[in-house]
Amino acid sequence: MEPSVNFCSACGASTSFQIPAGDSLPRHVCTQCDTIHYRNPRLIVGSLPEWEDRILLCRRAIEPMYGKWTLPAGFMENGETVADAARRETAEEACARIALGNMFSLISVPHIDQVHVIYRARLLDLDFAAGAETLELRLFSEDEIPWDEIAFRTIKITLRHYFADRRAGQFLFHDEAIV
Amino acid sequence: MEPSVNFCSACGASTSFQIPAGDSLPRHVCTQCDTIHYRNPRLIVGSLPEWEDRILLCRRAIEPMYGKWTLPAGFMENGETVADAARRETAEEACARIALGNMFSLISVPHIDQVHVIYRARLLDLDFAAGAETLELRLFSEDEIPWDEIAFRTIKITLRHYFADRRAGQFLFHDEAIV
Repeated sequence: MEPSVNFCSACGASTSFQIPAGDSLPRHVCTQCDTIHYRNPRLIVGSLPEWEDRILLCRRAIEPMYGKWTLPAGFMENGETVADAARRETAEEACARIALGNMFSLISVPHIDQVHVIYRARLLDLDFAAGAETLELRLFSEDEIPWDEIAFRTIKITLRHYFADRRAGQFLFHDEAIV
Repeated sequence: MEPSVNFCSACGASTSFQIPAGDSLPRHVCTQCDTIHYRNPRLIVGSLPEWEDRILLCRRAIEPMYGKWTLPAGFMENGETVADAARRETAEEACARIALGNMFSLISVPHIDQVHVIYRARLLDLDFAAGAETLELRLFSEDEIPWDEIAFRTIKITLRHYFADRRAGQFLFHDEAIV
């Protein structure tokens, strides 16, 4: 959850929730310096690392969904590209060396103001290791995927597309939304 | 530009710029209530509306790049999907009724902490009209595009891909970055 906006981060005065002139939505506006504090969706970016016919999943060491399995992914940071974010998160959570492939899924999650993006990736070696936010790592073939223990719907959707596309012999780009 | 974070938006106390425990980057942290104020990239989303062999451009009525030509696009809002944002911006800036097509370009612009996304779109009629942030609208064939008067590099890159793909007979998805 994002922090509330009771005060202006620039000058410290109180804010008022109102529709600024020329706008159509209410915003948090400073009552002293008139700064408008916009809120916008965030990007969660990661990768789907492949090794032969298996893919790498991470078991989460943090909330939410502690103990559940997911792909290495996290919040995109200022100053990086979307591809940079996928590489960094894969390095941080799985200590994995990858060759990043194409963007594979982009899923809007409007009820939590997020957009989840996953790239295909090829593991360069098997020297991966759990990062600070990961309990353990494991390579799974399609019939081993713990479907009932996948942490997030966007990851489950991405994995289903991945195996369906692989069977069809062509990886597409999947842009969709959870509504 | 985003407002500075001198004060905590939740409690109004001053902030300190430091690396929180377990993190790797400095953040603005409240000195009283310990709230961490993250900054993350924003999505700018829009469409490339087609009518037969022409495309619709908007001449900007606002800064930056007042008077220059662009595609209808703007900041994605909380609570909407990426496709919703493309439709809404096209309605707001060009008052245009469209059938949204596939996501066409996604361009990271890390030096300004943005990601620009453009969908292909088909105009349903010619009843478009300049919105509040637009001076005028015009349909352009490829040889009429005012290349030296295009407002943003991401839009110029997107238009070049569009005409190249159209000539090649296949529209691809273009994920890249301006670095």
